[in-house]
Amino acid sequence: MTELALLPATIIEPIIRLALQEDFGTAGDVTANALVPAKANGHLYFKSRATGVLAGMQAAEMTYALVDPTMIFKARKNDGSRVKKGDIIAEVRGPVRSLLMAERTALNFLGRLSGVATLTSQYADLVAHTKAKVAATRKTTPGLRALEKRAVLAGGGATHRQSLSDAIMIKDNHIALAGGIEKALTQIMEKADHMVRVSVEVDTLGQLQKALPFAPDVVLLDNMGPDILKKAVAIVDGFDGPRPVLEASGGVNLGTVKDIAESGIDIISIGALTHSATNFDIGLDAK
Amino acid sequence: MTELALLPATIIEPIIRLALQEDFGTAGDVTANALVPAKANGHLYFKSRATGVLAGMQAAEMTYALVDPTMIFKARKNDGSRVKKGDIIAEVRGPVRSLLMAERTALNFLGRLSGVATLTSQYADLVAHTKAKVAATRKTTPGLRALEKRAVLAGGGATHRQSLSDAIMIKDNHIALAGGIEKALTQIMEKADHMVRVSVEVDTLGQLQKALPFAPDVVLLDNMGPDILKKAVAIVDGFDGPRPVLEASGGVNLGTVKDIAESGIDIISIGALTHSATNFDIGLDAK
Amino acid sequence: MTELALLPATIIEPIIRLALQEDFGTAGDVTANALVPAKANGHLYFKSRATGVLAGMQAAEMTYALVDPTMIFKARKNDGSRVKKGDIIAEVRGPVRSLLMAERTALNFLGRLSGVATLTSQYADLVAHTKAKVAATRKTTPGLRALEKRAVLAGGGATHRQSLSDAIMIKDNHIALAGGIEKALTQIMEKADHMVRVSVEVDTLGQLQKALPFAPDVVLLDNMGPDILKKAVAIVDGFDGPRPVLEASGGVNLGTVKDIAESGIDIISIGALTHSATNFDIGLDAK
Amino acid sequence: MTELALLPATIIEPIIRLALQEDFGTAGDVTANALVPAKANGHLYFKSRATGVLAGMQAAEMTYALVDPTMIFKARKNDGSRVKKGDIIAEVRGPVRSLLMAERTALNFLGRLSGVATLTSQYADLVAHTKAKVAATRKTTPGLRALEKRAVLAGGGATHRQSLSDAIMIKDNHIALAGGIEKALTQIMEKADHMVRVSVEVDTLGQLQKALPFAPDVVLLDNMGPDILKKAVAIVDGFDGPRPVLEASGGVNLGTVKDIAESGIDIISIGALTHSATNFDIGLDAK
Amino acid sequence: MTELALLPATIIEPIIRLALQEDFGTAGDVTANALVPAKANGHLYFKSRATGVLAGMQAAEMTYALVDPTMIFKARKNDGSRVKKGDIIAEVRGPVRSLLMAERTALNFLGRLSGVATLTSQYADLVAHTKAKVAATRKTTPGLRALEKRAVLAGGGATHRQSLSDAIMIKDNHIALAGGIEKALTQIMEKADHMVRVSVEVDTLGQLQKALPFAPDVVLLDNMGPDILKKAVAIVDGFDGPRPVLEASGGVNLGTVKDIAESGIDIISIGALTHSATNFDIGLDAK
Amino acid sequence: MTELALLPATIIEPIIRLALQEDFGTAGDVTANALVPAKANGHLYFKSRATGVLAGMQAAEMTYALVDPTMIFKARKNDGSRVKKGDIIAEVRGPVRSLLMAERTALNFLGRLSGVATLTSQYADLVAHTKAKVAATRKTTPGLRALEKRAVLAGGGATHRQSLSDAIMIKDNHIALAGGIEKALTQIMEKADHMVRVSVEVDTLGQLQKALPFAPDVVLLDNMGPDILKKAVAIVDGFDGPRPVLEASGGVNLGTVKDIAESGIDIISIGALTHSATNFDIGLDAK
Repeated sequence: MTELALLPATIIEPIIRLALQEDFGTAGDVTANALVPAKANGHLYFKSRATGVLAGMQAAEMTYALVDPTMIFKARKNDGSRVKKGDIIAEVRGPVRSLLMAERTALNFLGRLSGVATLTSQYADLVAHTKAKVAATRKTTPGLRALEKRAVLAGGGATHRQSLSDAIMIKDNHIALAGGIEKALTQIMEKADHMVRVSVEVDTLGQLQKALPFAPDVVLLDNMGPDILKKAVAIVDGFDGPRPVLEASGGVNLGTVKDIAESGIDIISIGALTHSATNFDIGLDAK
Repeated sequence: MTELALLPATIIEPIIRLALQEDFGTAGDVTANALVPAKANGHLYFKSRATGVLAGMQAAEMTYALVDPTMIFKARKNDGSRVKKGDIIAEVRGPVRSLLMAERTALNFLGRLSGVATLTSQYADLVAHTKAKVAATRKTTPGLRALEKRAVLAGGGATHRQSLSDAIMIKDNHIALAGGIEKALTQIMEKADHMVRVSVEVDTLGQLQKALPFAPDVVLLDNMGPDILKKAVAIVDGFDGPRPVLEASGGVNLGTVKDIAESGIDIISIGALTHSATNFDIGLDAK
Repeated sequence: MTELALLPATIIEPIIRLALQEDFGTAGDVTANALVPAKANGHLYFKSRATGVLAGMQAAEMTYALVDPTMIFKARKNDGSRVKKGDIIAEVRGPVRSLLMAERTALNFLGRLSGVATLTSQYADLVAHTKAKVAATRKTTPGLRALEKRAVLAGGGATHRQSLSDAIMIKDNHIALAGGIEKALTQIMEKADHMVRVSVEVDTLGQLQKALPFAPDVVLLDNMGPDILKKAVAIVDGFDGPRPVLEASGGVNLGTVKDIAESGIDIISIGALTHSATNFDIGLDAK
Repeated sequence: MTELALLPATIIEPIIRLALQEDFGTAGDVTANALVPAKANGHLYFKSRATGVLAGMQAAEMTYALVDPTMIFKARKNDGSRVKKGDIIAEVRGPVRSLLMAERTALNFLGRLSGVATLTSQYADLVAHTKAKVAATRKTTPGLRALEKRAVLAGGGATHRQSLSDAIMIKDNHIALAGGIEKALTQIMEKADHMVRVSVEVDTLGQLQKALPFAPDVVLLDNMGPDILKKAVAIVDGFDGPRPVLEASGGVNLGTVKDIAESGIDIISIGALTHSATNFDIGLDAK
Repeated sequence: MTELALLPATIIEPIIRLALQEDFGTAGDVTANALVPAKANGHLYFKSRATGVLAGMQAAEMTYALVDPTMIFKARKNDGSRVKKGDIIAEVRGPVRSLLMAERTALNFLGRLSGVATLTSQYADLVAHTKAKVAATRKTTPGLRALEKRAVLAGGGATHRQSLSDAIMIKDNHIALAGGIEKALTQIMEKADHMVRVSVEVDTLGQLQKALPFAPDVVLLDNMGPDILKKAVAIVDGFDGPRPVLEASGGVNLGTVKDIAESGIDIISIGALTHSATNFDIGLDAK
Repeated sequence: MTELALLPATIIEPIIRLALQEDFGTAGDVTANALVPAKANGHLYFKSRATGVLAGMQAAEMTYALVDPTMIFKARKNDGSRVKKGDIIAEVRGPVRSLLMAERTALNFLGRLSGVATLTSQYADLVAHTKAKVAATRKTTPGLRALEKRAVLAGGGATHRQSLSDAIMIKDNHIALAGGIEKALTQIMEKADHMVRVSVEVDTLGQLQKALPFAPDVVLLDNMGPDILKKAVAIVDGFDGPRPVLEASGGVNLGTVKDIAESGIDIISIGALTHSATNFDIGLDAK
């Protein structure tokens, strides 16, 4: 996890500027301006107040840089680090007025993204003994897609498709419009760009059998319980042709994920990783 | 709740554009483009799949308008409406390609914001028999401040300060820097603009007694249990001078909020309303 | 004046959005939201409260359109119209909440820009019996360049150079750096693009005589009184070669402009038209 | 005044970029590019050419930084400093081409904002012997709200409400729509967020008496002469309940402000501070 | 080709606004404003002046809409249509001033994008008798990626990877850094997201043989002549495992593309489609 | 050419950010992130692979700075330098991941802009023995106006009008709308700002004779062959009044430009310089 790549600064700068604009309103921090001398300097420590996995350090660091580049932010832990209550995550020094102005926004990023990483790690831990990986979906918070996908990576998950243009996913409504799974796959295999993966959603084992001869890259087995998933795996194992990646989705929670993973599928996609993660508690203390 | 005001379009347009940009990537919906005829039209219904309170309708409607203004979005319920599983929330008609392109982003806004409204309503219901109101904090999702504050309103809560420039909140670190609560309040009462409210955080009843003579608009009673809060209320009731609004914060959850409210305070501010709300499940169905 | 062209919408939209963002803060009009029913409609009239020249109607109209496109703004007067106290300038109808949200921003544009047009007209009136025209400079309010230049046009003035890239103006510091006015003009005449006018500032009649043989498009006679200006005009009239436009600047005010104009020069550029115009009083009344 | 806080850079950067974009047009400074060697360096001094109060130093400094970060801008005076003709305000060094490109924009900010600060100080000086303070309104130049409000602070005034979302101001039209001042105040006191101040405008002493029992934070006494204002103060002094801040507005100018202040009110709000300030003359000299 | 999907408006709006901003400068069309009456209306026809394939109609239409939504643009041909000299492509009606303001920008989009489509169609025609398709690269004009990729589609080509985040392409420098093609592929097959295609570049047939067992989605055969390409095809045909897509690149021009295509490979990627297309001549005539 | 001025950074930053956004998609360089260690550093050399003239160095340098300011870009040649195959143009050092992320965008700018400079130089060389200069038009690539105009300068050409607001160009359609060339010129000479050049297009020698008495700054001789152009020059030489700049356009290509130049005209404007330039081949090598 120590090598998790940074996102391009140009991708995350707009959402950080938007967050600062929201929090500064029309005049900045009127409390600090009234009470804190311009020359007062401070030194603060980000401390974990819970057990989990860290994410969002790049956004936090850029928040400080955009507020006042004279502040010095020093990470003590990287995204993907497992932390426990009391661990020092980072420290930051600089003018107190600037420290106070940046604090809430930096913590909002860290809390949200570490929340995603932590929830992801809980799922990932439950399937670690299998070959299955948990993966995010496009059910991300508006404006935070890139950051949340990366938080899923930090938590040990996979990102899945980043946007509608990255990969082809044929879902039930597409199949209905195309007139059946075979027609949909026929059309797609003609039209899909050679650099784009093709995934097809199947709701039944019958659909799975129809899909396999088209050699899709991925088959998404939607809303099947572990027993049906095992049968799906068996069908694919018995198929004489290229083996697609098998992805399961629907009805996944911390109670069911282990059984689903043990069915032999490859990927479990879970909207909750991003849409139902809650804040990871991090504090900013003077020592 | 039926009169909850719309946000200015210019405030929410940037985050919606950012969300669409994320989801469209570099080329838009490559699946729909390959499978859906340009002229196919559709008619879809947003249906609640759970019990809760609705928020985010304005963002959903604007999402459709920005994707393709020929789509017609018609709300059946307003923000603040209580909905249950199966209720139709809205309907939308137009070209299927456009419908598919806008769907995920619209649902991401609705799911997140209705999640905030629903959690808020759960807190609000627990204190409805008291004079206390629950209120949001600045612990909002980056980029969604205005929308989440409004979702809290929809859920029956109060927005609290929107940004660092709206109101003065003297917190422990300001007090330490100023050299004590009395020095901090003296300074503030000289400098604060007459159109800005002043809130001061106190950690002890002793601090409360020191603060009252300065006639702050709000006293924030931080991390006090119901018993101490009652004493605080008694002190204020016995004070011969203007009564500040009494706000409690810290250690508030669905299990403690009732007792806190019954202590007689006015406002309970709760970071969780925004930072720990989870997705409210809404589906988009053909019928 | 009735045909004064509109500015491209894409040029003025950014400053109007910025103005709305400033005025809406983080949540819009909290007063109107609390007091005005969502369905209340209104009809308001912009009335002049002074005598002067109108400008800024396009910005006002776009302000209403960006706040809420269901409002109907109807101009009764155009930019450049002379108005007196009580004249109805425009009317606007729509939801009261939207009317109230847009009001201050629309009036700020109209007041500022009509102020510029009115001051310009005062100067223009004083020189109307001569061939001289008054012209703006680049001393405009940041963000309002295009709108203020157009307000000068509305007031009967000339825009002059719009930006540093429109035309060449050789000023004293350029001449010093180039090693004298002849060297500067020699260099410029070699390098200047054929679609760009060349103006050269001269501080003395001696410099004027040196400049003329280079056939600059414009000679800027800086800080010369009417008597010297007359001599400058005589020198140019006596010069056997192309006659440059003669522009005077420096020391121009409502008391001196007439004499300066009567010296025979062509253009009088005046920073005050934009940097020292004051608000033109316009009210928004229910009838 | 020496501790006047900086505005967040993210708030003022957009208007400075807009101002530079206006002034650079499509190609930058074609004159300097033709006449000034790329390697020429210069050193310039901002000098006051009049007596007044300085404001806008942060915008000027950021202008230079955005044009070319190799330029070194060094303030010799701070916002709020009283300056007289000939005082050196700042110096700046760097490549001459960059110096020339930034000059006009920096001066436009300084001239406008110091104009606001200077006019404010003239009003503030006239009321300095009373407890009254002068305050700005929302009648600011579009795009310059934050900078002009801060210039008012620099001149010794108060900022007043920054935007429509900062505070509640019940004006005559709201009262009319609500069906009278008592109905309006009743509604507001129920709905207003606890962190938002409430101001109510009254046109008569009768309205004042009706308003007092609702304990508004501020009462705005609109268009009353000094004699009526004194009566209003007497009414409030005799009221048995919390004393609101008393604000006067309407008919305020440099001739009337002293008498108004001496009536005993607390705040005098004056649109002219921002909408009718004129340029403060600052020059940029080589020595 | 008649069903080529539109790009999301939010993707192309920024580049069109930038183009208009460039062309309008600081004041718009000063010539038309001086010569054309505000009320003059016109009707113009876009006519092809050459033989080729059309692209860019969506950008042209949006250009008119952003300049003045009262203009009516009506396409007579769609992107992908083959046109010859004299064919009417579209017509547009509205105020003459608006027509003149939008003209150059609309033509610049159409000329550039139809140039790309036309060049693509020339390559595509030469390989139409084979199974090979020609494809674009990331060598696109800055700012025009989405539009140029779509123009390649219009010309009968394939888009290939849209951005660095869409798909994995292992190139020679990656292989060198990883320590050989087998190490690079081992690493990638572990780390690549299941929704992302993997392409690997090989420079020799030996590398091809090493790559095949890793089952990459695509093998890019770089800089091989038709004879070597045939051998590569034979190797792949003889390989007992999943067949990758075979892509050829390097040394492709209108003289060599046919032989390359006949070697049996699947895709020929060609930077020239976008980086060396020239303007396709379209005129705007009154009839 | 060594002193060619830089463009203001604020002008070119938007198009570079757009180009990076396009190329990074939603997640950046997924290949480098998977294969290149975060700490790997590299050193690369830009080498010319052809003979031509360089342009775009500023855009390339800013690309690296925006991607990662720790990279060090060092120019070895300036815009306007003539280069041949193998010449080192620049070098760049820094983290390999960052180097790979910036590479394609930097090369796309350099290749396009050096292509424009190179084509311009080919035209310029053919007319170097005459007084004529070749000049660009507004037929530039959307988004690249400023950069392409500057590339034309680098190649030895002239920029011509940058935008619709820089200068007045009366074209055939304006003349038709105005009711003839004399009416058009009469109107313009009254209305044109004194800092704006006036060019008039003539299609016949008769029109030229009508235009001369109005003393336009430039006469554009449209679509006349060398023989007619010579006659036009003779007419102007024989005219007793100010000599306009004579510009030829239409039918200009590398085969005809020499004869056109030798006719004695001053400027030859050529859309092809920007709309039909092709990529100049530059490589990025490890040594």
